[in-house]
Amino acid sequence: MEYIKNFNVRNQRNLTMLVDFYELTMGNGYLESSVGNKISYFDMFFRRVPDHGGYCIMAGVQQLIEYLSSLKFTEDDIDYLRSKNIFSEKFLDYLKNFEFTCDVWAIPEGNPVFPNEPLVTVKGPAIQAQFVETMILLTINHQTLIATKANRICRAAEGRPVMEFGSRRAQGYDGAIYGARAAVIGGCSATACTIAEEMFGIPAAGTMAHSWIQLFDSEYESFKAWVDVYPDNCILLVDTYNVLKSGLPNAIKVFDEVLVPRGYRPKGIRIDSGDITYLTQKCREILDNAGYPDVEIIVSNSLDEYIISDVLAQGATINSFGVGERLITAKSEPVFGGVYKLVAVEDDEGNIVPKIKISENEEKITNPAFKKIYRIYDNIANKAVADLITLNDEEIDVSKPLEIFDPVYTWKRRRFKNYYVKQLMVKIFDKGKQVYESPNVSEIKKIVKEETEKLWPEVLRFENPHHYYVDLSEKLWNLKQDLLHDYSIVYED
Amino acid sequence: MEYIKNFNVRNQRNLTMLVDFYELTMGNGYLESSVGNKISYFDMFFRRVPDHGGYCIMAGVQQLIEYLSSLKFTEDDIDYLRSKNIFSEKFLDYLKNFEFTCDVWAIPEGNPVFPNEPLVTVKGPAIQAQFVETMILLTINHQTLIATKANRICRAAEGRPVMEFGSRRAQGYDGAIYGARAAVIGGCSATACTIAEEMFGIPAAGTMAHSWIQLFDSEYESFKAWVDVYPDNCILLVDTYNVLKSGLPNAIKVFDEVLVPRGYRPKGIRIDSGDITYLTQKCREILDNAGYPDVEIIVSNSLDEYIISDVLAQGATINSFGVGERLITAKSEPVFGGVYKLVAVEDDEGNIVPKIKISENEEKITNPAFKKIYRIYDNIANKAVADLITLNDEEIDVSKPLEIFDPVYTWKRRRFKNYYVKQLMVKIFDKGKQVYESPNVSEIKKIVKEETEKLWPEVLRFENPHHYYVDLSEKLWNLKQDLLHDYSIVYED
Repeated sequence: MEYIKNFNVRNQRNLTMLVDFYELTMGNGYLESSVGNKISYFDMFFRRVPDHGGYCIMAGVQQLIEYLSSLKFTEDDIDYLRSKNIFSEKFLDYLKNFEFTCDVWAIPEGNPVFPNEPLVTVKGPAIQAQFVETMILLTINHQTLIATKANRICRAAEGRPVMEFGSRRAQGYDGAIYGARAAVIGGCSATACTIAEEMFGIPAAGTMAHSWIQLFDSEYESFKAWVDVYPDNCILLVDTYNVLKSGLPNAIKVFDEVLVPRGYRPKGIRIDSGDITYLTQKCREILDNAGYPDVEIIVSNSLDEYIISDVLAQGATINSFGVGERLITAKSEPVFGGVYKLVAVEDDEGNIVPKIKISENEEKITNPAFKKIYRIYDNIANKAVADLITLNDEEIDVSKPLEIFDPVYTWKRRRFKNYYVKQLMVKIFDKGKQVYESPNVSEIKKIVKEETEKLWPEVLRFENPHHYYVDLSEKLWNLKQDLLHDYSIVYED
Repeated sequence: MEYIKNFNVRNQRNLTMLVDFYELTMGNGYLESSVGNKISYFDMFFRRVPDHGGYCIMAGVQQLIEYLSSLKFTEDDIDYLRSKNIFSEKFLDYLKNFEFTCDVWAIPEGNPVFPNEPLVTVKGPAIQAQFVETMILLTINHQTLIATKANRICRAAEGRPVMEFGSRRAQGYDGAIYGARAAVIGGCSATACTIAEEMFGIPAAGTMAHSWIQLFDSEYESFKAWVDVYPDNCILLVDTYNVLKSGLPNAIKVFDEVLVPRGYRPKGIRIDSGDITYLTQKCREILDNAGYPDVEIIVSNSLDEYIISDVLAQGATINSFGVGERLITAKSEPVFGGVYKLVAVEDDEGNIVPKIKISENEEKITNPAFKKIYRIYDNIANKAVADLITLNDEEIDVSKPLEIFDPVYTWKRRRFKNYYVKQLMVKIFDKGKQVYESPNVSEIKKIVKEETEKLWPEVLRFENPHHYYVDLSEKLWNLKQDLLHDYSIVYED
């Protein structure tokens, strides 16, 4: 994971204008109404883990940092906005001289995250904090979705390497590029997306398509030609005509007659169609009997965590997987529903006034106030036992027992004596200046490994995982109750 | 649809390296084995219409043209590839001096397209035709997916405008940007994605979020502030607290007390949550009774074609829709399964030798040979009645009757006397030079409108649409049968 060179060259796009138009109409309105400079607090959070999973893997912070540190409206942008005939010159001037001055906190990439806890918090003038809404959501939603899906797929593979193969079916170029990044964060060992290695230093790899085989006069000739070029990296695709009657016999023939006599060992065969369990078992047996127990079997046909679990349970003999469209689009649930909500506003005296968004749907009621999150770990098992969201000025004294409670069934209480805590969010921007350096992808992968190992196996389950508790501190819970009562309006029927 | 200015500025990324790594390993191998210069023919096609629909809307050709006309490996790319230690210096030199020399044909954007017909055909040296696989698939798969989904959603809206709102939940930045383009091609009237207007001249629009309302001391104050800034574009979001008890009464109060006295008419209200049918009917009644029958009702909460059809069938009174995540990700079926397959190779004498990819799954058997597609229209009804794939050198003489037949049940035959035909594919590159200028989005929208109007209503259905016939000419059918017999291998059991 070494090659990260022309990262900046590849990212020279200015995405400042990748913004929902209403953020501009509101911005113009905030400025006119002088609400624009009110210091506001917004949280980005999600409400539900996709695929009924137990947790998500945070991803996308590096790209969020790049975006926030390069906000810049060009003359062309200003001209375009002027042509809409709805923005004041005052607002256009403001954009022309735009300077990002917000504080931003985020949970570092690679950490398991849970519903209803802030993944990103922005504090700053309303006009600015509002403006960054779309890109915060777009960046974190996308990569967290794919990292989470990849983590599921890799768990299903039970330690076998999983390669990301999906560029061709991704939703747009960045779907492929940042999707590959997120997939590797989630656990994939490599990607087929070449540009992703240049950009992120994640290993790119690949061998041959069926067309390689078809372009030669025979399958045998095509394998032989491959061996001539890649004797020390010989993985042959064996399902172009018929795996057991043609592909595998031809492969073994080339191993026997060409590769081994030259002093090389073959690496593997790949199967891209057909009955995986049957074919891999047969191929394993034939390879073993032919003296190739070390030759690996790679499988790659419309896979996801469900199919991988199935074929492994059936006894398929597979060494590694290539996973395409169902990973790169998170096909089973392709939307990560992160939202970005106002949680507090400072009044003229600088007091932080918490805000709540009420809803008839209880799940959609937001957690108000400027907050932070503690992850609580059991000292003996070294497992995460709960997250606790507190007001930003609350401290946990780990020398004393900690009691937490279910925010709905408040009589459900747990008390920890032997525990340690970690604050989940880190400050990434201070008054608009970047104050955090994103780790690289291989460092982020380490975080994923370490932190998912600290989750109880019950939380890691695919089906019916244990609910991981995200509770509110007593102070925050009381504040929320007070706000709900304040905001509740008794309407005459 | 006028504003297209800094298109090139926005697209300065070099996406040459957005390629599956195996296209490079194969390329290196082709060059070593001298298969690389064999003139090859590849077709891009798909096998199934998503969501069980009757047709897809072709999209993405403009971006494909941009990619193909700007292929360029940088020094950094070459250095990176050299660092992999598997490519020959000969191959790296080839890339350094890479010149695209292929012929490319494509079906122009906006046309309805059907399974198993080529959407794109590439003819050129194997090494080149193979190299462009990923980007052809990625570009056409993504935009065709979204244009097709948008077309479904707009059909469900039965003429009411549909706005694309999904950037924040898109899969990556291009998912949002090119997704917005494809959505407007498919039928959306506008997008919330601002940068898409700058790039493609598609109208961007938007009003306010709930946070606008929450930032003021009261809902009424927030509406009043909006009216002060946007008196002639007053669309108010009425569901922050309670649509019928708070939002709508406050909106009408502001209309009555502020907007109308100043000589303006309000434009609309937007509802983003709750029971759509009930709320829109009630709001319509209240607005009508308050003297605002011209004020429109806009709805925008997790919509797709199914929900839109439902609420309209229930009698919801809606003037327009905002559609987000379920459109921008094609949530119900987020993968467009386009494939790219070798269909012919020229031999040393320049004869085109057709190639077929066989499969135990009959649907996966490819249509061999260098081909073209005729769309056949009934002269009297002016409706498309079938597509006919022929060998590239076949001509249809419309002065004579045309008989076509089902490629499986060959006794099912149809004979046309009074018909006209259109060749679907156009040449977009000739020996690597662009020879086709892509129409702009509003011109493409016209194609969508005209060409979908030429489909029978039975093909436009959501559920159980009539199968639109894509048949093979007799010559092509015979050729395919011959190849299947040639390639069939009788294995001893």
